[in-house]
Amino acid sequence: MRKPIAIQGIRGSFHHEVAQKYFNNEADVIECMSFDTAVESLLKKSTDTIVMALENSIAGSIIPNYALIDNHNLSIVGEYYLDIQHNLLALEGKGIDTIREVHSHPMALLQCKTFFKDYPQIKLVEAKDTADVAKQIAEHQIEGIAAIASKSAARLYQLNILAESIQTIKHNETRFAIVMRENENLDKKGINKASLKFELDHKRGSLATILNVMSDCKLNLTKIQSLPKINTPWKYAFFVDVTFNNYEDYEKAQAIMEIMAQNFKVLGEYKNAKT
Amino acid sequence: MRKPIAIQGIRGSFHHEVAQKYFNNEADVIECMSFDTAVESLLKKSTDTIVMALENSIAGSIIPNYALIDNHNLSIVGEYYLDIQHNLLALEGKGIDTIREVHSHPMALLQCKTFFKDYPQIKLVEAKDTADVAKQIAEHQIEGIAAIASKSAARLYQLNILAESIQTIKHNETRFAIVMRENENLDKKGINKASLKFELDHKRGSLATILNVMSDCKLNLTKIQSLPKINTPWKYAFFVDVTFNNYEDYEKAQAIMEIMAQNFKVLGEYKNAKT
Repeated sequence: MRKPIAIQGIRGSFHHEVAQKYFNNEADVIECMSFDTAVESLLKKSTDTIVMALENSIAGSIIPNYALIDNHNLSIVGEYYLDIQHNLLALEGKGIDTIREVHSHPMALLQCKTFFKDYPQIKLVEAKDTADVAKQIAEHQIEGIAAIASKSAARLYQLNILAESIQTIKHNETRFAIVMRENENLDKKGINKASLKFELDHKRGSLATILNVMSDCKLNLTKIQSLPKINTPWKYAFFVDVTFNNYEDYEKAQAIMEIMAQNFKVLGEYKNAKT
Repeated sequence: MRKPIAIQGIRGSFHHEVAQKYFNNEADVIECMSFDTAVESLLKKSTDTIVMALENSIAGSIIPNYALIDNHNLSIVGEYYLDIQHNLLALEGKGIDTIREVHSHPMALLQCKTFFKDYPQIKLVEAKDTADVAKQIAEHQIEGIAAIASKSAARLYQLNILAESIQTIKHNETRFAIVMRENENLDKKGINKASLKFELDHKRGSLATILNVMSDCKLNLTKIQSLPKINTPWKYAFFVDVTFNNYEDYEKAQAIMEIMAQNFKVLGEYKNAKT
Protein backbone atom coordinates (compact mmCIF):
# COMPACT_ATOMS: atom_id res chain seq x y z
CA MET A 1 0.00 0.00 0.00
CA ARG A 2 1.43 3.39 -0.96
CA LYS A 3 1.91 5.88 1.86
CA PRO A 4 1.96 9.71 1.63
CA ILE A 5 5.16 10.94 3.33
CA ALA A 6 6.07 14.63 3.61
CA ILE A 7 9.75 15.40 3.12
CA GLN A 8 11.87 18.52 3.24
CA GLY A 9 12.89 19.01 -0.37
CA ILE A 10 11.88 17.41 -3.64
CA ARG A 11 12.30 14.10 -5.45
CA GLY A 12 15.99 13.34 -5.78
CA SER A 13 16.81 14.82 -2.37
CA PHE A 14 18.44 12.87 0.48
CA HIS A 15 15.12 13.03 2.35
CA HIS A 16 13.44 11.39 -0.66
CA GLU A 17 16.07 8.63 -0.62
CA VAL A 18 15.43 8.00 3.09
CA ALA A 19 11.65 7.92 2.59
CA GLN A 20 12.01 5.32 -0.18
CA LYS A 21 14.44 3.17 1.76
CA TYR A 22 12.57 3.30 5.08
CA PHE A 23 9.21 2.54 3.48
CA ASN A 24 10.49 -0.03 0.92
CA ASN A 25 9.75 2.18 -2.11
CA GLU A 26 6.13 2.58 -1.04
CA ALA A 27 6.39 6.29 -0.16
CA ASP A 28 4.40 8.82 -2.18
CA VAL A 29 6.43 11.86 -1.22
CA ILE A 30 4.84 15.24 -0.56
CA GLU A 31 7.53 17.78 -1.46
CA CYS A 32 7.90 20.60 1.10
CA MET A 33 10.25 23.54 0.70
CA SER A 34 11.14 23.74 4.41
CA PHE A 35 11.03 21.69 7.60
CA ASP A 36 8.39 24.12 8.90
CA THR A 37 6.16 23.39 5.90
CA ALA A 38 6.59 19.63 6.35
CA VAL A 39 5.54 19.98 10.01
CA GLU A 40 2.55 22.13 9.00
CA SER A 41 1.38 19.41 6.59
CA LEU A 42 1.57 16.94 9.46
CA LEU A 43 -0.37 19.21 11.84
CA LYS A 44 -3.03 19.88 9.17
CA LYS A 45 -3.27 16.11 8.63
CA SER A 46 -2.34 16.31 4.94
CA THR A 47 0.00 13.49 5.90
CA ASP A 48 0.56 11.24 8.91
CA THR A 49 4.31 10.93 8.55
CA ILE A 50 7.29 13.16 7.80
CA VAL A 51 11.00 12.50 7.33
CA MET A 52 13.37 14.95 9.02
CA ALA A 53 17.18 15.12 9.32
CA LEU A 54 18.19 15.26 12.99
CA GLU A 55 21.96 15.15 13.15
CA ASN A 56 25.08 14.81 11.13
CA SER A 57 28.38 13.20 12.01
CA ILE A 58 30.20 16.39 10.96
CA ALA A 59 28.04 19.34 11.94
CA GLY A 60 26.29 17.83 14.98
CA SER A 61 22.63 18.17 15.90
CA ILE A 62 20.15 20.20 13.88
CA ILE A 63 18.76 21.97 16.95
CA PRO A 64 15.94 23.80 15.09
CA ASN A 65 14.48 20.40 14.07
CA TYR A 66 14.61 19.14 17.64
CA ALA A 67 12.75 22.34 18.57
CA LEU A 68 10.06 21.65 15.91
CA ILE A 69 9.44 18.14 17.29
CA ASP A 70 9.47 19.37 20.89
CA ASN A 71 7.33 22.51 20.43
CA HIS A 72 4.61 20.70 18.45
CA ASN A 73 4.68 17.61 20.69
CA LEU A 74 5.39 15.34 17.74
CA SER A 75 6.66 11.81 18.11
CA ILE A 76 9.73 10.11 16.62
CA VAL A 77 8.61 6.62 15.53
CA GLY A 78 11.70 5.51 13.64
CA GLU A 79 15.19 6.45 12.49
CA TYR A 80 17.39 5.91 9.46
CA TYR A 81 21.12 6.53 8.88
CA LEU A 82 22.22 7.63 5.40
CA ASP A 83 25.78 8.02 4.19
CA ILE A 84 25.66 11.40 2.42
CA GLN A 85 27.82 11.70 -0.68
CA HIS A 86 27.88 15.08 -2.42
CA ASN A 87 28.52 15.32 -6.16
CA LEU A 88 28.94 18.32 -8.42
CA LEU A 89 26.31 18.25 -11.17
CA ALA A 90 25.88 20.33 -14.32
CA LEU A 91 24.46 20.11 -17.83
CA GLU A 92 25.92 17.43 -20.11
CA GLY A 93 28.99 18.56 -22.07
CA LYS A 94 29.92 21.41 -19.69
CA GLY A 95 33.31 21.33 -17.93
CA ILE A 96 34.04 22.70 -14.45
CA ASP A 97 35.81 25.72 -16.04
CA THR A 98 32.42 26.88 -17.38
CA ILE A 99 30.92 27.03 -13.87
CA ARG A 100 30.57 30.51 -12.31
CA GLU A 101 28.22 29.69 -9.43
CA VAL A 102 27.29 26.71 -7.31
CA HIS A 103 23.87 26.85 -5.70
CA SER A 104 23.12 24.51 -2.81
CA HIS A 105 21.93 24.09 0.75
CA PRO A 106 24.12 25.91 3.33
CA MET A 107 24.99 22.57 5.00
CA ALA A 108 26.14 21.09 1.67
CA LEU A 109 28.18 24.22 0.88
CA LEU A 110 29.83 24.02 4.31
CA GLN A 111 30.67 20.35 3.87
CA CYS A 112 32.24 20.92 0.45
CA LYS A 113 34.00 24.25 0.99
CA THR A 114 37.52 22.77 0.87
CA PHE A 115 36.86 21.38 -2.63
CA PHE A 116 35.97 24.88 -3.89
CA LYS A 117 39.19 26.43 -2.53
CA ASP A 118 40.79 25.27 -5.80
CA TYR A 119 38.12 27.11 -7.80
CA PRO A 120 38.11 30.67 -6.44
CA GLN A 121 36.16 31.88 -9.49
CA ILE A 122 33.13 29.84 -8.39
CA LYS A 123 30.73 31.78 -6.17
CA LEU A 124 28.81 29.77 -3.54
CA VAL A 125 25.15 30.74 -3.34
CA GLU A 126 22.69 29.47 -0.75
CA ALA A 127 19.65 27.65 -2.07
CA LYS A 128 16.79 25.98 -0.24
CA ASP A 129 17.24 22.47 -1.52
CA THR A 130 20.09 20.48 -3.03
CA ALA A 131 17.95 18.52 -5.51
CA ASP A 132 15.83 21.50 -6.55
CA VAL A 133 18.88 23.25 -8.01
CA ALA A 134 19.60 20.13 -10.09
CA LYS A 135 15.99 20.10 -11.28
CA GLN A 136 16.06 23.80 -12.24
CA ILE A 137 19.35 23.43 -14.13
CA ALA A 138 17.89 20.51 -16.10
CA GLU A 139 14.44 22.04 -16.76
CA HIS A 140 15.70 25.43 -17.86
CA GLN A 141 18.98 24.18 -19.37
CA ILE A 142 20.91 26.67 -17.23
CA GLU A 143 24.59 27.03 -18.14
CA GLY A 144 27.30 28.30 -15.76
CA ILE A 145 25.57 27.06 -12.61
CA ALA A 146 26.27 23.73 -10.91
CA ALA A 147 24.39 21.86 -8.19
CA ILE A 148 25.67 19.80 -5.27
CA ALA A 149 23.45 16.75 -5.04
CA SER A 150 23.23 12.97 -4.95
CA LYS A 151 23.86 10.53 -7.76
CA SER A 152 20.17 9.68 -7.75
CA ALA A 153 19.42 13.37 -8.45
CA ALA A 154 21.89 13.20 -11.37
CA ARG A 155 20.03 10.18 -12.77
CA LEU A 156 16.56 11.64 -12.13
CA TYR A 157 17.35 14.99 -13.81
CA GLN A 158 19.83 13.61 -16.37
CA LEU A 159 22.77 15.78 -15.35
CA ASN A 160 26.46 15.12 -15.74
CA ILE A 161 28.60 14.40 -12.66
CA LEU A 162 31.57 16.82 -12.84
CA ALA A 163 33.11 15.55 -9.60
CA GLU A 164 32.21 12.74 -7.20
CA SER A 165 32.21 12.77 -3.38
CA ILE A 166 33.36 16.38 -3.10
CA GLN A 167 32.66 16.67 0.63
CA THR A 168 35.78 17.22 2.77
CA ILE A 169 35.11 14.41 5.23
CA LYS A 170 34.41 11.34 3.15
CA HIS A 171 32.40 9.44 5.75
CA ASN A 172 29.45 11.73 6.30
CA GLU A 173 26.53 10.05 7.98
CA THR A 174 23.25 11.79 8.63
CA ARG A 175 20.58 10.51 10.99
CA PHE A 176 16.98 11.01 9.90
CA ALA A 177 13.88 10.68 12.06
CA ILE A 178 10.51 9.34 10.96
CA VAL A 179 8.04 11.63 12.74
CA MET A 180 4.28 11.34 13.35
CA ARG A 181 1.78 13.37 15.37
CA GLU A 182 1.54 10.60 17.94
CA ASN A 183 3.44 7.42 18.52
CA GLU A 184 1.59 4.58 16.86
CA ASN A 185 4.09 2.00 18.04
CA LEU A 186 1.51 0.58 20.47
CA ASP A 187 3.15 -2.80 20.26
CA LYS A 188 6.30 -2.35 22.30
CA LYS A 189 7.95 -5.44 20.77
CA GLY A 190 11.04 -4.43 18.85
CA ILE A 191 11.26 -1.04 20.58
CA ASN A 192 14.83 -0.69 21.87
CA LYS A 193 15.62 3.02 21.58
CA ALA A 194 14.12 6.23 22.97
CA SER A 195 14.69 9.97 22.57
CA LEU A 196 14.16 11.91 25.78
CA LYS A 197 14.22 15.52 26.86
CA PHE A 198 14.41 16.82 30.41
CA GLU A 199 15.51 19.86 32.35
CA LEU A 200 17.78 20.18 35.34
CA ASP A 201 18.79 22.99 37.62
CA HIS A 202 22.41 23.99 37.47
CA LYS A 203 23.27 22.07 40.62
CA ARG A 204 26.42 20.07 41.03
CA GLY A 205 25.90 16.40 40.22
CA SER A 206 22.33 16.75 38.92
CA LEU A 207 23.15 15.22 35.54
CA ALA A 208 25.40 12.53 37.04
CA THR A 209 22.49 11.44 39.25
CA ILE A 210 20.19 11.02 36.25
CA LEU A 211 22.85 9.16 34.27
CA ASN A 212 23.38 6.84 37.24
CA VAL A 213 19.67 5.96 37.14
CA MET A 214 19.94 5.22 33.42
CA SER A 215 23.03 3.07 33.96
CA ASP A 216 21.45 1.22 36.91
CA CYS A 217 18.42 0.45 34.71
CA LYS A 218 20.73 -0.89 31.97
CA LEU A 219 20.14 1.91 29.49
CA ASN A 220 22.95 2.79 27.07
CA LEU A 221 23.44 6.43 26.20
CA THR A 222 23.99 6.99 22.45
CA LYS A 223 23.66 10.76 22.42
CA ILE A 224 23.63 13.63 24.89
CA GLN A 225 23.43 17.34 24.24
CA SER A 226 22.89 20.17 26.69
CA LEU A 227 21.18 23.36 25.65
CA PRO A 228 20.92 26.36 28.00
CA LYS A 229 17.25 27.29 28.43
CA ILE A 230 16.70 30.60 26.71
CA ASN A 231 15.58 33.28 29.18
CA THR A 232 16.10 30.94 32.15
CA PRO A 233 19.61 31.38 33.53
CA TRP A 234 21.18 28.35 35.21
CA LYS A 235 18.61 25.94 33.85
CA TYR A 236 19.58 23.44 31.18
CA ALA A 237 17.61 21.25 28.82
CA PHE A 238 19.12 17.92 27.79
CA PHE A 239 18.38 15.92 24.67
CA VAL A 240 19.31 12.30 25.27
CA ASP A 241 19.03 9.10 23.22
CA VAL A 242 19.16 5.73 24.97
CA THR A 243 19.12 2.13 23.79
CA PHE A 244 18.05 -0.88 25.84
CA ASN A 245 17.42 -4.61 25.56
CA ASN A 246 14.27 -4.85 27.68
CA TYR A 247 11.39 -2.40 27.47
CA GLU A 248 10.67 -3.03 31.18
CA ASP A 249 14.13 -1.69 32.11
CA TYR A 250 13.40 1.47 30.15
CA GLU A 251 9.95 1.85 31.76
CA LYS A 252 11.51 1.65 35.20
CA ALA A 253 14.15 4.29 34.36
CA GLN A 254 11.46 6.49 32.87
CA ALA A 255 9.36 6.34 36.06
CA ILE A 256 12.36 7.40 38.16
CA MET A 257 13.50 10.13 35.76
CA GLU A 258 10.00 11.61 35.67
CA ILE A 259 10.32 12.21 39.42
CA MET A 260 13.94 13.35 39.45
CA ALA A 261 14.11 15.63 36.39
CA GLN A 262 11.89 18.55 35.46
CA ASN A 263 9.62 18.59 32.42
CA PHE A 264 10.62 15.06 31.49
CA LYS A 265 9.33 14.22 28.04
CA VAL A 266 9.53 11.25 25.68
CA LEU A 267 10.18 12.54 22.14
CA GLY A 268 9.92 9.06 20.70
CA GLU A 269 10.26 5.30 21.21
CA TYR A 270 11.38 3.27 18.23
CA LYS A 271 13.61 0.59 16.82
CA ASN A 272 17.36 1.26 16.87
CA ALA A 273 18.58 1.43 13.27
CA LYS A 274 22.20 0.69 14.24
CA THR A 275 22.87 -2.90 15.10
CA MET B 1 49.20 48.70 24.43
CA ARG B 2 47.43 47.77 21.21
CA LYS B 3 47.13 44.06 20.44
CA PRO B 4 46.79 42.40 17.00
CA ILE B 5 43.76 40.08 17.15
CA ALA B 6 42.63 37.95 14.19
CA ILE B 7 38.86 37.72 13.74
CA GLN B 8 36.56 35.90 11.37
CA GLY B 9 35.04 38.73 9.36
CA ILE B 10 35.74 42.44 9.03
CA ARG B 11 35.33 45.61 11.08
CA GLY B 12 31.68 45.98 12.06
CA SER B 13 31.21 42.20 12.51
CA PHE B 14 30.13 40.58 15.76
CA HIS B 15 33.63 39.13 16.11
CA HIS B 16 35.01 42.68 15.88
CA GLU B 17 32.62 43.79 18.62
CA VAL B 18 33.76 40.93 20.86
CA ALA B 19 37.46 41.70 20.23
CA GLN B 20 36.92 45.36 21.20
CA LYS B 21 34.93 44.52 24.31
CA TYR B 22 37.19 41.72 25.56
CA PHE B 23 40.39 43.75 25.03
CA ASN B 24 38.96 47.12 26.20
CA ASN B 25 39.14 48.73 22.74
CA GLU B 26 42.82 47.90 22.45
CA ALA B 27 42.41 45.30 19.69
CA ASP B 28 43.94 45.98 16.26
CA VAL B 29 41.86 43.50 14.33
CA ILE B 30 43.26 41.38 11.50
CA GLU B 31 40.32 40.71 9.20
CA CYS B 32 40.08 37.07 8.02
CA MET B 33 37.48 35.79 5.57
CA SER B 34 37.06 32.42 7.31
CA PHE B 35 37.71 30.65 10.59
CA ASP B 36 40.32 28.54 8.76
CA THR B 37 42.21 31.68 7.68
CA ALA B 38 42.10 33.07 11.23
CA VAL B 39 43.58 29.83 12.54
CA GLU B 40 46.25 29.89 9.80
CA SER B 41 47.31 33.40 10.87
CA LEU B 42 47.66 32.08 14.43
CA LEU B 43 49.72 29.07 13.34
CA LYS B 44 51.96 31.26 11.14
CA LYS B 45 52.40 33.59 14.15
CA SER B 46 50.99 36.63 12.32
CA THR B 47 49.00 37.01 15.52
CA ASP B 48 49.00 35.44 18.98
CA THR B 49 45.26 35.60 19.54
CA ILE B 50 42.06 34.94 17.61
CA VAL B 51 38.38 35.38 18.44
CA MET B 52 36.08 32.53 17.41
CA ALA B 53 32.34 31.90 17.89
CA LEU B 54 31.80 28.56 19.63
CA GLU B 55 28.10 28.18 20.28
CA ASN B 56 24.77 29.86 20.01
CA SER B 57 21.72 29.64 22.26
CA ILE B 58 19.56 28.86 19.20
CA ALA B 59 21.62 26.73 16.86
CA GLY B 60 23.85 24.96 19.39
CA SER B 61 27.56 24.27 19.07
CA ILE B 62 29.60 25.22 16.02
CA ILE B 63 31.24 21.80 15.78
CA PRO B 64 33.67 22.72 12.94
CA ASN B 65 35.22 25.39 15.21
CA TYR B 66 35.64 22.91 18.04
CA ALA B 67 37.37 20.68 15.48
CA LEU B 68 39.74 23.52 14.46
CA ILE B 69 40.79 24.09 18.10
CA ASP B 70 41.13 20.38 18.74
CA ASN B 71 42.95 19.39 15.53
CA HIS B 72 45.53 22.20 15.82
CA ASN B 73 45.97 21.76 19.57
CA LEU B 74 45.05 25.39 20.24
CA SER B 75 44.10 26.70 23.65
CA ILE B 76 41.00 28.58 24.79
CA VAL B 77 42.22 31.32 27.16
CA GLY B 78 39.00 33.28 27.61
CA GLU B 79 35.33 33.54 26.68
CA TYR B 80 32.80 36.29 25.97
CA TYR B 81 29.00 36.18 25.62
CA LEU B 82 27.39 38.58 23.14
CA ASP B 83 23.68 39.17 22.66
CA ILE B 84 23.33 39.04 18.86
CA GLN B 85 20.76 41.40 17.37
CA HIS B 86 20.25 41.23 13.61
CA ASN B 87 19.11 44.31 11.68
CA LEU B 88 18.20 44.75 8.03
CA LEU B 89 20.46 47.38 6.45
CA ALA B 90 20.33 49.13 3.06
CA LEU B 91 21.29 52.40 1.40
CA GLU B 92 19.73 55.58 2.80
CA GLY B 93 16.38 56.47 1.24
CA LYS B 94 15.56 52.93 0.04
CA GLY B 95 12.45 51.18 1.38
CA ILE B 96 12.09 47.43 1.96
CA ASP B 97 9.93 47.17 -1.21
CA THR B 98 13.02 48.03 -3.29
CA ILE B 99 14.95 45.04 -1.91
CA ARG B 100 15.27 42.00 -4.21
CA GLU B 101 18.02 40.10 -2.40
CA VAL B 102 19.41 39.82 1.09
CA HIS B 103 22.99 38.61 1.32
CA SER B 104 24.25 37.34 4.66
CA HIS B 105 25.95 34.56 6.58
CA PRO B 106 23.98 31.25 6.53
CA MET B 107 23.56 31.37 10.32
CA ALA B 108 22.08 34.89 10.16
CA LEU B 109 19.76 33.88 7.30
CA LEU B 110 18.60 30.87 9.32
CA GLN B 111 17.94 32.98 12.42
CA CYS B 112 15.90 35.53 10.46
CA LYS B 113 14.00 33.28 8.05
CA THR B 114 10.61 33.85 9.70
CA PHE B 115 10.90 37.63 9.13
CA PHE B 116 11.38 37.05 5.39
CA LYS B 117 8.29 34.85 5.07
CA ASP B 118 6.35 38.14 4.71
CA TYR B 119 8.63 39.16 1.83
CA PRO B 120 8.57 36.22 -0.60
CA GLN B 121 10.02 38.43 -3.37
CA ILE B 122 13.29 38.73 -1.43
CA LYS B 123 15.83 36.04 -2.32
CA LEU B 124 18.19 34.92 0.45
CA VAL B 125 21.77 34.56 -0.76
CA GLU B 126 24.61 33.13 1.28
CA ALA B 127 27.57 35.42 1.87
CA LYS B 128 30.75 34.89 3.84
CA ASP B 129 30.37 37.70 6.33
CA THR B 130 27.49 39.76 7.68
CA ALA B 131 29.44 43.03 7.93
CA ASP B 132 31.20 42.64 4.57
CA VAL B 133 27.88 42.79 2.73
CA ALA B 134 27.11 46.07 4.52
CA LYS B 135 30.53 47.42 3.52
CA GLN B 136 30.07 46.41 -0.14
CA ILE B 137 26.60 47.98 -0.32
CA ALA B 138 27.98 51.24 1.08
CA GLU B 139 31.22 51.33 -0.99
CA HIS B 140 29.59 50.51 -4.32
CA GLN B 141 26.22 52.18 -3.54
CA ILE B 142 24.43 48.92 -4.44
CA GLU B 143 20.65 49.25 -4.75
CA GLY B 144 18.21 46.35 -4.38
CA ILE B 145 20.41 44.37 -1.98
CA ALA B 146 20.16 44.48 1.81
CA ALA B 147 22.49 43.19 4.52
CA ILE B 148 21.75 41.56 7.87
CA ALA B 149 24.18 43.06 10.35
CA SER B 150 24.67 44.85 13.64
CA LYS B 151 23.85 48.46 14.48
CA SER B 152 27.56 49.14 14.78
CA ALA B 153 27.95 47.99 11.15
CA ALA B 154 25.14 50.41 10.19
CA ARG B 155 27.01 53.26 11.92
CA LEU B 156 30.43 52.28 10.52
CA TYR B 157 29.20 52.02 6.91
CA GLN B 158 26.50 54.71 7.17
CA LEU B 159 23.59 52.51 6.14
CA ASN B 160 19.93 52.89 6.98
CA ILE B 161 18.26 50.40 9.36
CA LEU B 162 15.14 49.13 7.52
CA ALA B 163 14.10 46.82 10.38
CA GLU B 164 15.52 46.19 13.85
CA SER B 165 16.01 42.87 15.67
CA ILE B 166 14.66 40.76 12.82
CA GLN B 167 15.81 37.44 14.29
CA THR B 168 12.97 35.09 15.23
CA ILE B 169 14.11 34.39 18.78
CA LYS B 170 14.77 37.75 20.37
CA HIS B 171 17.22 36.58 23.02
CA ASN B 172 20.05 35.24 20.92
CA GLU B 173 23.27 34.82 22.82
CA THR B 174 26.48 33.66 21.22
CA ARG B 175 29.52 32.44 23.11
CA PHE B 176 32.91 33.42 21.71
CA ALA B 177 36.27 31.93 22.65
CA ILE B 178 39.55 33.82 22.85
CA VAL B 179 42.05 31.35 21.41
CA MET B 180 45.88 31.24 21.47
CA ARG B 181 48.47 28.70 20.37
CA GLU B 182 49.23 27.85 23.97
CA ASN B 183 47.64 28.75 27.25
CA GLU B 184 49.49 31.71 28.68
CA ASN B 185 47.36 31.76 31.82
CA LEU B 186 50.31 30.54 33.86
CA ASP B 187 48.92 32.25 36.93
CA LYS B 188 46.01 30.00 37.89
CA LYS B 189 44.41 32.69 40.06
CA GLY B 190 41.05 33.65 38.66
CA ILE B 191 40.81 30.47 36.57
CA ASN B 192 37.42 28.90 37.33
CA LYS B 193 36.34 27.28 34.07
CA ALA B 194 37.76 24.63 31.74
CA SER B 195 36.86 23.10 28.37
CA LEU B 196 37.65 19.40 28.15
CA LYS B 197 37.47 16.70 25.53
CA PHE B 198 37.63 12.97 26.11
CA GLU B 199 36.56 9.71 24.54
CA LEU B 200 34.68 6.78 25.98
CA ASP B 201 33.76 3.35 24.74
CA HIS B 202 30.07 2.74 24.26
CA LYS B 203 29.79 0.87 27.55
CA ARG B 204 26.87 1.22 29.88
CA GLY B 205 27.56 3.75 32.63
CA SER B 206 30.90 4.99 31.23
CA LEU B 207 29.76 8.62 31.06
CA ALA B 208 27.94 8.44 34.40
CA THR B 209 31.18 7.28 36.05
CA ILE B 210 33.10 10.28 34.68
CA LEU B 211 30.35 12.71 35.71
CA ASN B 212 30.40 11.21 39.20
CA VAL B 213 34.12 12.01 39.44
CA MET B 214 33.41 15.59 38.36
CA SER B 215 30.61 15.91 40.87
CA ASP B 216 32.68 14.39 43.69
CA CYS B 217 35.44 16.90 42.91
CA LYS B 218 32.92 19.77 43.09
CA LEU B 219 32.96 20.59 39.37
CA ASN B 220 29.82 22.06 37.82
CA LEU B 221 28.93 20.99 34.29
CA THR B 222 27.87 23.93 32.10
CA LYS B 223 27.91 22.15 28.75
CA ILE B 224 28.05 18.62 27.42
CA GLN B 225 27.90 17.38 23.88
CA SER B 226 28.52 13.92 22.51
CA LEU B 227 29.84 13.39 19.02
CA PRO B 228 30.16 9.93 17.49
CA LYS B 229 33.76 9.38 16.41
CA ILE B 230 33.87 9.30 12.63
CA ASN B 231 35.12 5.95 11.34
CA THR B 232 35.15 4.46 14.85
CA PRO B 233 31.84 2.75 15.57
CA TRP B 234 30.70 2.65 19.21
CA LYS B 235 33.23 5.20 20.33
CA TYR B 236 32.10 8.66 21.39
CA ALA B 237 33.93 11.94 21.93
CA PHE B 238 32.56 14.34 24.53
CA PHE B 239 33.05 18.09 24.68
CA VAL B 240 32.46 19.26 28.23
CA ASP B 241 32.72 22.62 29.99
CA VAL B 242 33.06 22.75 33.78
CA THR B 243 33.22 25.53 36.34
CA PHE B 244 34.77 25.30 39.80
CA ASN B 245 35.65 27.40 42.82
CA ASN B 246 39.04 25.91 43.64
CA TYR B 247 41.66 25.14 41.04
CA GLU B 248 42.89 22.28 43.27
CA ASP B 249 39.49 20.53 42.98
CA TYR B 250 39.74 20.76 39.21
CA GLU B 251 43.33 19.45 39.21
CA LYS B 252 42.24 16.44 41.23
CA ALA B 253 39.33 15.68 38.87
CA GLN B 254 41.64 16.09 35.88
CA ALA B 255 44.13 13.56 37.28
CA ILE B 256 41.37 10.98 37.76
CA MET B 257 39.72 11.64 34.36
CA GLU B 258 43.08 11.28 32.59
CA ILE B 259 43.19 7.70 33.89
CA MET B 260 39.52 6.84 33.37
CA ALA B 261 38.79 8.37 29.96
CA GLN B 262 40.64 7.92 26.70
CA ASN B 263 42.49 10.70 24.91
CA PHE B 264 41.66 13.16 27.68
CA LYS B 265 42.57 16.68 26.61
CA VAL B 266 42.27 20.16 28.09
CA LEU B 267 41.08 22.56 25.36
CA GLY B 268 41.40 25.53 27.68
CA GLU B 269 41.42 26.90 31.23
CA TYR B 270 40.08 30.40 31.71
CA LYS B 271 37.87 32.77 33.66
CA ASN B 272 34.13 32.08 33.57
CA ALA B 273 32.45 35.07 31.86
CA LYS B 274 29.04 34.29 33.42
CA THR B 275 28.75 35.22 37.06
